Amino acid sequence: VKDLELPPLDGVLASLGDYVAIPSDSRNADGGTMRRAADWIAGQLDFAGGRVEETGGHPVVRGEWLGAPGAPTVLVYGHYDVQPTGDESEWLSPPFQLTVVDGTADGAIARGRGASDDKGPVFLVVAMLQAAIAQRGGLPLNVKFLIEGEEEIGSPHLPGYVREHARELACDLVISADGAQWRPDEPSLSVASKGLVAFTITVEGARDDLHSGRYGGTVANPAQVLAAILASLHHPDGSVAVPGFYDGAAPPDAARRAELDAVPFDEERFAAQLGVTETYGEAGYSTLQRLWERPTLEVNGVAGGGRYTVIPHVARGFISCRLVGDQDPVRVLAAVRGHVERLGARGVRVTVEQDGGAVPAYRIDPAHPAIAAATEALRAVYPGEEVLLAVIAGTLPATTLFEQVLGAKTLFFSFSTADEKLHAPNEFLRLRRVHEGMRAWDALLASMADGPHRLQPVRLPDLAEAKA
Amino acid sequence: VKDLELPPLDGVLASLGDYVAIPSDSRNADGGTMRRAADWIAGQLDFAGGRVEETGGHPVVRGEWLGAPGAPTVLVYGHYDVQPTGDESEWLSPPFQLTVVDGTADGAIARGRGASDDKGPVFLVVAMLQAAIAQRGGLPLNVKFLIEGEEEIGSPHLPGYVREHARELACDLVISADGAQWRPDEPSLSVASKGLVAFTITVEGARDDLHSGRYGGTVANPAQVLAAILASLHHPDGSVAVPGFYDGAAPPDAARRAELDAVPFDEERFAAQLGVTETYGEAGYSTLQRLWERPTLEVNGVAGGGRYTVIPHVARGFISCRLVGDQDPVRVLAAVRGHVERLGARGVRVTVEQDGGAVPAYRIDPAHPAIAAATEALRAVYPGEEVLLAVIAGTLPATTLFEQVLGAKTLFFSFSTADEKLHAPNEFLRLRRVHEGMRAWDALLASMADGPHRLQPVRLPDLAEAKA
Repeated sequence: VKDLELPPLDGVLASLGDYVAIPSDSRNADGGTMRRAADWIAGQLDFAGGRVEETGGHPVVRGEWLGAPGAPTVLVYGHYDVQPTGDESEWLSPPFQLTVVDGTADGAIARGRGASDDKGPVFLVVAMLQAAIAQRGGLPLNVKFLIEGEEEIGSPHLPGYVREHARELACDLVISADGAQWRPDEPSLSVASKGLVAFTITVEGARDDLHSGRYGGTVANPAQVLAAILASLHHPDGSVAVPGFYDGAAPPDAARRAELDAVPFDEERFAAQLGVTETYGEAGYSTLQRLWERPTLEVNGVAGGGRYTVIPHVARGFISCRLVGDQDPVRVLAAVRGHVERLGARGVRVTVEQDGGAVPAYRIDPAHPAIAAATEALRAVYPGEEVLLAVIAGTLPATTLFEQVLGAKTLFFSFSTADEKLHAPNEFLRLRRVHEGMRAWDALLASMADGPHRLQPVRLPDLAEAKA
Repeated sequence: VKDLELPPLDGVLASLGDYVAIPSDSRNADGGTMRRAADWIAGQLDFAGGRVEETGGHPVVRGEWLGAPGAPTVLVYGHYDVQPTGDESEWLSPPFQLTVVDGTADGAIARGRGASDDKGPVFLVVAMLQAAIAQRGGLPLNVKFLIEGEEEIGSPHLPGYVREHARELACDLVISADGAQWRPDEPSLSVASKGLVAFTITVEGARDDLHSGRYGGTVANPAQVLAAILASLHHPDGSVAVPGFYDGAAPPDAARRAELDAVPFDEERFAAQLGVTETYGEAGYSTLQRLWERPTLEVNGVAGGGRYTVIPHVARGFISCRLVGDQDPVRVLAAVRGHVERLGARGVRVTVEQDGGAVPAYRIDPAHPAIAAATEALRAVYPGEEVLLAVIAGTLPATTLFEQVLGAKTLFFSFSTADEKLHAPNEFLRLRRVHEGMRAWDALLASMADGPHRLQPVRLPDLAEAKA
């Protein structure tokens, strides 16, 4: 196979600029705008029969190039929707106008909503594949595409769509062009993501808000009971105090601890970047160990009453737990419920209600051939650098969906970087990632097609079971 | 002095209906509407030179009948502004259309915003005085009027106005037609109101909200720190845990405890009316003792983050303390600050900021001649019933203002009742209170003018000092 001649950066950025110009904010844009973005990326998939399909919500973009019979099949996943812009006055250039800036602290960048999450990382794969087919007449393995339009709003229609089209989407591996390199300093591969269970604790007292003078001291105060409950969820040492919470969350072994300890990680710089005076968390673990290997229980918000003199009749705490290993999100929620019940608050009603889905932690075996292939591909692009096995401390429900319905593991292979202001004003993509990413994807597919890291066939699970 | 022939109820209600029809909601109404309400009640004060005066905010209504030289002078205080209606769909009749309903569980009532707070209680005094002058040619003592239009929004312009006009407002006693009888079951006089100091505890962490996955477990969570701080403010037995909080709050003595224990008070009915399963508060005191005699610290609200997976960068708790006896609101706030500082939360910034004014508790000596006169007046109207010495557990900053600037104590003498849905939809006034109130005010003024309960002269404090 001859070396790929990479498409010139100017042309890639011009096309990406057209794509970014379509404000496909899935939370706020109208159906026509979302459809234009879907049509645009489907149009780039001409070589794979690119098309737009209905889902009941924002449509998905599908396509498949199946010209390598007998070779493995990968499903490239990504999304064409973007986050809202946030406060537009904070943007240094218009959010939907891709703007190249040279010589920033991050090198040359292209700024715009979706540049890094996820229009840029998807488009660089597509542009690479276009070039590969043009120059070589084909690809080394079969490639299917599933590019959704609702990732930023929790993919509400994706599970139904994937179940309905499981046979068409069957593959040996999902490769996600969504995700991110952990840091710009070294190449990394994510081998795990955390699970998630979120819930609301509601404390209800009197029928209505009561005047804090005319009724002060007579009835239990829901805001105070809520505070006591929330305070009881952690020990003073930062560990979670809910009995049973840690079941299934085995501490990292000595080897993994040593691995993480070897990762260059500047605590002070990390804290300064976030604007805090020091890091904080579960005692007995380093910051990186906590972030990657330990489950967390974070209070996401509190609400009730206000800055007026009442005893609020209701107060709510919003909580999410990120899970690791074999923690069962359903049992975690039950453990919290039991803990709250045992506190036995008087004179109020306390309920614990789940919010959204319960997602277990996800993990791809570091010994999976996809990791070996990806490591080799990254080494080819970043010679002499160690490839870090990282963890996405966030939660990616699609990984569990693909495993359950398609029987396929998901490899994260994105050339976004986690610090590129994803979801914030002034999102950007490092320009160097465009060609780095193309070369890495080219190497990855070649490595997965044949040789020691060739993908093993995956059997589609029984659909009846998958639909259960 | 011949007995007063009370004005017929129909006529009083017709006039009050005109007054209620002016939607003088001081938070939302335009200046013209507020002025119409001021003009209306000023027009009723023709016998006292009623007029409207500017304050910089909503105007005040002033007037004075000074035809009893040598007799004491009282200043009648009230307000012509009303609370917002709240959800109009909850009203059983239009809020600004006074609607008479017979045979309710509360007897015959007049429903409408302001009927009980404070248009009705003020107007019944005015209508009684009109009748007295018409029938008797004069009053037994001098009466001044100060009816403000900003009571429901914290009287922001009242202190300045009263200081500017202290000489004109000089009196031997303020009688407030605002306030309320504690219950419909027995006559009561309030001899104290609680002090108030309110503050916001702000906990700030990172510069921005952080993704609860990508940063979970790495930094202190402001919502969790806030919960720990708020939980630390009370002991498990319901008492306040802030060292120094109770300084100056002497527990009620055995006599006062016995007095309160003798008040018929149905705990279960009280709880059921509020919609709670049980009452709750500081251990060692009955509900009524806590309400009337003990200071409280209530969390009025909590805010921060929301039902989305972040570590909020800021969380706030809104707190108000109601004070008794000699508690110093400034020292109470300092005690809370010290307590919070000693907790020493790590990785966050915690501030405690005062909200609004710091008002000490207010008290009128039960031996004050005004209390004796008022007791006698109530006994005349409610023969055979004990007059309960009650406490307004709310805070009335105007009382402290009048004492500081005019040197005069304030007697609460309102014929509103505390259960008449003040500030809520379907506010009402018991019709029987109209004539009861008129007879009581007539008896009160006579008793204060001459005889054993004649008011003692009050000296206007040095104005330079009062303005300091």
